[in-house]
Amino acid sequence: MLENVDLSSRLSKEEYKARIDDLYIRIGELQRKAWKMQIPIIIVFEGWHASGMDSIINRCMLAFNPMGLRFHVIVKPSEEESRKPMLWRFWQKIPAYGKIAIFERSWYSRCIIESFDRRSKYNGLDGCIKEINNFERQLTDDDHLLMKFFMHVSQEEQAKRLKVYEKKDIPISVVTEELDYENEYKRYFSLVDETIKKTHFSHSPWTIVEAENSNHATIKILSTILLTLENYIDSMLESSCPLPVSNRIDDFSPSSHGLLNADLSLMMEDEKYEREMDFYQKILGELQYELFREKRPLMVVFEGWDAAGKGGNIRRIAEKLDPRLYKVEPIGVPNDYEKSHHYLWRFYRRVPEAGHITIFDRSWYGRVLVERVENLCFEERWQQAYEEINEFEETLTDFGTIIVKFWLHIDKEEQLRRFQSRESIPEKQWKITSDDWRNREKWDDYLKAVDEMLLRTDTNYAPWTVVEANDKRYARIKTLKTLVNTIEEDLH
Amino acid sequence: MLENVDLSSRLSKEEYKARIDDLYIRIGELQRKAWKMQIPIIIVFEGWHASGMDSIINRCMLAFNPMGLRFHVIVKPSEEESRKPMLWRFWQKIPAYGKIAIFERSWYSRCIIESFDRRSKYNGLDGCIKEINNFERQLTDDDHLLMKFFMHVSQEEQAKRLKVYEKKDIPISVVTEELDYENEYKRYFSLVDETIKKTHFSHSPWTIVEAENSNHATIKILSTILLTLENYIDSMLESSCPLPVSNRIDDFSPSSHGLLNADLSLMMEDEKYEREMDFYQKILGELQYELFREKRPLMVVFEGWDAAGKGGNIRRIAEKLDPRLYKVEPIGVPNDYEKSHHYLWRFYRRVPEAGHITIFDRSWYGRVLVERVENLCFEERWQQAYEEINEFEETLTDFGTIIVKFWLHIDKEEQLRRFQSRESIPEKQWKITSDDWRNREKWDDYLKAVDEMLLRTDTNYAPWTVVEANDKRYARIKTLKTLVNTIEEDLH
Repeated sequence: MLENVDLSSRLSKEEYKARIDDLYIRIGELQRKAWKMQIPIIIVFEGWHASGMDSIINRCMLAFNPMGLRFHVIVKPSEEESRKPMLWRFWQKIPAYGKIAIFERSWYSRCIIESFDRRSKYNGLDGCIKEINNFERQLTDDDHLLMKFFMHVSQEEQAKRLKVYEKKDIPISVVTEELDYENEYKRYFSLVDETIKKTHFSHSPWTIVEAENSNHATIKILSTILLTLENYIDSMLESSCPLPVSNRIDDFSPSSHGLLNADLSLMMEDEKYEREMDFYQKILGELQYELFREKRPLMVVFEGWDAAGKGGNIRRIAEKLDPRLYKVEPIGVPNDYEKSHHYLWRFYRRVPEAGHITIFDRSWYGRVLVERVENLCFEERWQQAYEEINEFEETLTDFGTIIVKFWLHIDKEEQLRRFQSRESIPEKQWKITSDDWRNREKWDDYLKAVDEMLLRTDTNYAPWTVVEANDKRYARIKTLKTLVNTIEEDLH
Repeated sequence: MLENVDLSSRLSKEEYKARIDDLYIRIGELQRKAWKMQIPIIIVFEGWHASGMDSIINRCMLAFNPMGLRFHVIVKPSEEESRKPMLWRFWQKIPAYGKIAIFERSWYSRCIIESFDRRSKYNGLDGCIKEINNFERQLTDDDHLLMKFFMHVSQEEQAKRLKVYEKKDIPISVVTEELDYENEYKRYFSLVDETIKKTHFSHSPWTIVEAENSNHATIKILSTILLTLENYIDSMLESSCPLPVSNRIDDFSPSSHGLLNADLSLMMEDEKYEREMDFYQKILGELQYELFREKRPLMVVFEGWDAAGKGGNIRRIAEKLDPRLYKVEPIGVPNDYEKSHHYLWRFYRRVPEAGHITIFDRSWYGRVLVERVENLCFEERWQQAYEEINEFEETLTDFGTIIVKFWLHIDKEEQLRRFQSRESIPEKQWKITSDDWRNREKWDDYLKAVDEMLLRTDTNYAPWTVVEANDKRYARIKTLKTLVNTIEEDLH
């Protein structure tokens, strides 16, 4: 898409002045509309070095009220960022609903540079592009508006400008960059062109901007933003907002995969329990340092019925761990700030970094469990979530993360016994609330949701383990043992 | 405080087991009480390497419900952190009201290591200790509960343990550390001892923990936490909560410093305005790269009456800047997440990093303006705020930050004209709300608050400039010119 672009467009200072104020005012109005409609907007700027991007972007930014705007300059990842999957830092930066995020350079620069240097863990350019396309589709599926601009100048023009920068001592990059500017064009042209072609979709289109003249470039970008924003707002107003419909649980017929045909009579004697507990805790204590040395992240997910014993299981795992290397992340109702973002946002924030362990007490699966059963989100959104979750977990495993997921399974009678015991023992009373009793009434709805979840998110890279948990000792040993075995298989 | 500590205390496995569960249960109860009372708790662990800190801390942490807990391991600052004042990353990590933050190593380690290596910008150990004492006092003034433990082992014991670690390939630190462990004791003993002595206050006391026996250490720490927490909760329940009292504005008699005796008739002709605007914008455009090269942060603060022209002034400053080097931070009502922290927390997050510019559209001065006038916080708290703000700004300037503060001053008649004009011009209507009219009614209360603010926070390291702003052109040139002159004076 970059070849044969006519770069000769020019706009005089007078023509520019005649149009800019009107664009500012109209975009300002649209920003206020988008804010009221809670539309999140992402604008990506990519381009050659010395394309004059900085001053053009600055002029474009002045169209927006800074109250609703975040500007991000993407340079090479920090030490912390490089211990996380590539997209982690971009997930951190997606805008809240109604806000705007502008990126000067983005996941595209990173994808191209890291693929070129073969530093990417994502199997070269195509693996990286797959990640990006999933990422952008997940955002636009959640009604984020995405615009992408590539600032194009010719190789000759670039060379000329680089010389001027050098003379004036203007920094080309505000951090030490890993790029060889002089040879950028030669090295990257075909990669850049290919990437743009393979990531150009109707839901996230590229606009090539002839940037040799900054007046022309500014007006072209602002006009494009104006038009895109107008159309998007109109289309959102036209599409009557879908109302939460009955969640159609009955459309899904529980399969015969039988993950829930667990034998809940399984139990373990006290003596064996103590012995095996010591044994596996000790191995896990050693494996954590091996994970650390191998820079492998480990993510352990606990889901299960209320009172199934998640807390007790997590405690047994954590007991002999080094606190510097693990975190427990209890997941509850999202707070206001979390609610104002894509639902995966708060989980991306919490993924383990290289060599560290994160244990989730409940997780993103809330999307297809409580949010589904309680009608907290549109059916369309939780139906999409299975794919989104699988993509999320695949991203992490591609990065090297080991994922172990447990469903702690008890039957309805055992739950009743535990609820009653919690109510009768003073120091346990805080553990039981009216919510627990309410959830219990919807047991069958949850059962169907669990069944579908286990079926649709049981992947070879992140499989589920159903844990028979009527007997607490049996369950704790099974989770510990599964964890230890999975890590050992993966490492050795 | 470290000399002559009897390190021989031992606790058998049986004695430990007899006490630990009871401590867990009782601390769990207190955690729930503290959560209900919205008490933020900070627990700091410092100590020698190989003091066995990790496993002791892990056992202590198991006393708490992870839902309300954040654990922070402090190692040497990341690249990003080292571009910010030393305390920045600790401010990020203070707990929300009702939550607990546990630190393994903390501002103390950093202070000691960086002072020793003379890398600190805070004039050695004493400068650094001043920062820390201010920091801790600001937190406890805001009813944070602070506990500090130092894990003490003898030099012989340390040497013995380091050998074992090495043999077992257990990492002493989870990142590359800058310490020379072998000689740690010899190099740091007197510095550590001095620091502990100079930071031991009744509101933030140290407990020296004999850590050669981990059972003894764990029980001692948990008992101390239990007792401290019990006493603190009792004292909070006893002290009847102060109600917001009349804000006693009249107690303060406006001084004759006359900052508000501004000559509002000052104005500027169009032609001169255009010429000077070009001139100063151009210089500022060059100075930004000089700031960048010199790694100096610049903080520009705009306060002023509604409709005084803050937005227009900021736009003129930003117009020719490089967007990679500046940020505009509009400050509005804090969101729920921000409200659940010490009020300076959200401003610490936004301070400029080395070589960058941050422009605040309103600021922390809201504490002594709107929060005071509207009775949004207790008088005691906004009275403390003058000192806290001065300390905050001093911390930043000690780090090398240039601070420029503007009060945009218009008179009541000019404000009325501008409000009316905003109401009559369609594309300006969004700028005026009923809040603006309400604030206007309290003009005289605000005037007193502004006057006191200007008097009490006009320091030599961060002085105020009152800008006569009835004439927009005059005001814009004055802010630009002041900004340019301040930077030039400071750099040259």
